Amino acid sequence: MKRTLLFNLLIVVSVSGISLAQSDQPPVAEDFKPASTNQPGREYPQVNSEGRVRASISAPEAQRVQLDISAVKYDLVKDENGMWTGDSNPQDEGFHYYQLWIDGAAVPDPGSVYFYGAMRWGSGIDIPAKDQDFYALKDVPHGQIREILFPSESTDTSRRAFVYTPPDYDKDLSKRYPVLYLQHGWGENEYGWSNQGKVNLIIDNLIAEGKTRPFIIVMTYGMTNDVKIGGLRNFDIKPFQTVLIDELIPYVDANFRTLTDQPHRAMAGLSMGGFETRLITLENLDTFSHIGLFSGGSISPDDVKNTPGFKEKVKLVFVSYGSREIKNMKNRPRGGPFGGDPKENNDAISKEGINAHFYVSPNTAHEWQSWRRSLYEFALLLFK
Amino acid sequence: MKRTLLFNLLIVVSVSGISLAQSDQPPVAEDFKPASTNQPGREYPQVNSEGRVRASISAPEAQRVQLDISAVKYDLVKDENGMWTGDSNPQDEGFHYYQLWIDGAAVPDPGSVYFYGAMRWGSGIDIPAKDQDFYALKDVPHGQIREILFPSESTDTSRRAFVYTPPDYDKDLSKRYPVLYLQHGWGENEYGWSNQGKVNLIIDNLIAEGKTRPFIIVMTYGMTNDVKIGGLRNFDIKPFQTVLIDELIPYVDANFRTLTDQPHRAMAGLSMGGFETRLITLENLDTFSHIGLFSGGSISPDDVKNTPGFKEKVKLVFVSYGSREIKNMKNRPRGGPFGGDPKENNDAISKEGINAHFYVSPNTAHEWQSWRRSLYEFALLLFK
Repeated sequence: MKRTLLFNLLIVVSVSGISLAQSDQPPVAEDFKPASTNQPGREYPQVNSEGRVRASISAPEAQRVQLDISAVKYDLVKDENGMWTGDSNPQDEGFHYYQLWIDGAAVPDPGSVYFYGAMRWGSGIDIPAKDQDFYALKDVPHGQIREILFPSESTDTSRRAFVYTPPDYDKDLSKRYPVLYLQHGWGENEYGWSNQGKVNLIIDNLIAEGKTRPFIIVMTYGMTNDVKIGGLRNFDIKPFQTVLIDELIPYVDANFRTLTDQPHRAMAGLSMGGFETRLITLENLDTFSHIGLFSGGSISPDDVKNTPGFKEKVKLVFVSYGSREIKNMKNRPRGGPFGGDPKENNDAISKEGINAHFYVSPNTAHEWQSWRRSLYEFALLLFK
Repeated sequence: MKRTLLFNLLIVVSVSGISLAQSDQPPVAEDFKPASTNQPGREYPQVNSEGRVRASISAPEAQRVQLDISAVKYDLVKDENGMWTGDSNPQDEGFHYYQLWIDGAAVPDPGSVYFYGAMRWGSGIDIPAKDQDFYALKDVPHGQIREILFPSESTDTSRRAFVYTPPDYDKDLSKRYPVLYLQHGWGENEYGWSNQGKVNLIIDNLIAEGKTRPFIIVMTYGMTNDVKIGGLRNFDIKPFQTVLIDELIPYVDANFRTLTDQPHRAMAGLSMGGFETRLITLENLDTFSHIGLFSGGSISPDDVKNTPGFKEKVKLVFVSYGSREIKNMKNRPRGGPFGGDPKENNDAISKEGINAHFYVSPNTAHEWQSWRRSLYEFALLLFK
């Protein structure tokens, strides 16, 4: 199964654990500033103009302290006061998960805010990006992120979802809105798109600039069947599909002012969430008309052929990857995972008349900066 | 200043940092279970029927690992695999902040979910309480917790608040609701009441049982003037009062279906949030009619005398403390802080005809179980 191979690769990349000695550091630009992802008032971690991360922690009795980021461990150096400090190599722009190792214990950095990824709440850091303006907090009308608990008979509990409502939602109470169901990746959860993804700021800013139509976004936990590393070989979409199609969508349509017809409902996801989006939308084209796959596969000509009514029902296919992912694919035999090279697939269905778009995020890998940009590009095309 | 002394005391208690050797542990009941506050799938920390906390972490190269909870550090013991494990003494029922020390580094426990308290995001643990049913997640209609960003000219930024809307808020769009402004304590933030306080579950359950009228709750950051430890001597309520009265309340009244008159607006807070509530409500009795002070002072006969219109305008004064706080007060000279013994003050204004209630949370200290219970008791009396 090609899919399983790629997923395992992605998982290895996202779970930092590769040990590598770093001894010959080049000269470092001494313009470090506290990261935007720091806890209030914390001086460390810091980021410099090269995108290096400088970590620092007090551990007077420790023998070894390391910064572990992007699958590399960097030894920190102890000073006379017991403070350990050290730098990483330059990181790609955007968000990265990381952690510290203190004498063999993997722990969150007390300096950072915490994010859920790689199956844990842990440290994350944002490297300032040249295009960060599109997800900046600005003085524009802001929507809300609403935490809801919806009843789920299939899992016998109340499940959490976050619902973004656009800035004008509470102004005109007769207006109804299209809805995007938006999924996180493997090892992440329903907090990802608002915490790491900055979904509300991206859409607030787009709406303020008149670049997208106001719509509702619904984000819930997609690992309903408790997928473990390597377990995607036997991935069963049914448990999550039941929660989404039979429980969450009816709840949202009953409790929010949605447009409930197929032309006004979209689904998108990143990585495993893209995998889920592909499986669920292809089986439910009377429910969804817009499809977004961010670093998570593509729609092939065979998919179109094997899915009755695809050409009539699907209004948009959007496929995206980070440029470093594309590069890695090209280095691998047979051109790519997820049933074929995603660009070739997308070009092929585009030639068949499908409204299919392909986006490549410059100089980013299988990480959140790729997905922030993907959401932005996708939103420009949605519900037009 | 009596106020400052108490605040300093409370702060010392809430910032764990007192070292104490624990050598003679009594026999321990071996019925430990993973805590409800653990990260998904994590086996540790655990809690037993006595309320002991068992921490465990892999730190193969460490020399010393400690569990630091309720201002006591407990040495953990290393096994042959490098796992360090150990137990605390029995803890009070309810929520406690804690942390681990690894060779002198104070870090969050990777096993727990993280909460903001003592000026940091860090570990927390819930000890099952005999009365935990009142904040349990039940199959009842659920309200929403909405994250909003409101413009604040006085602080020149968009500020965050969380707004609880009751379960029926989106059903009848002509209905309007009373509002409670609810504040966290020193070193905490606007996440406290929903994360540690379980405010939504408490009110959802009360509404489902018909015990309280549905109302809106607004929670925002109350340390606008960046109060440091010991800095309460010069506490200036003006910056936060401006945000609350001039910016947040008008925004909420414009963007939510509130009842905007004084009889339908309440303010309450815990610890420093009670201190703020007392100062702000006494100066703004045309804005607030219901006052709740949870472990945060009381309204004295002098307050009533010095505040024109108090008897006519104030519909409810609710003052509460944990029983262990009351006990500590009795051991101190002059009967208590915050301008007099709170029970004596409350009895005195009650005799003057004020609708004043006093509640003591059994067997709890200056911690969240006292405040969960206080909110429950306060809600029973609100907007009647």
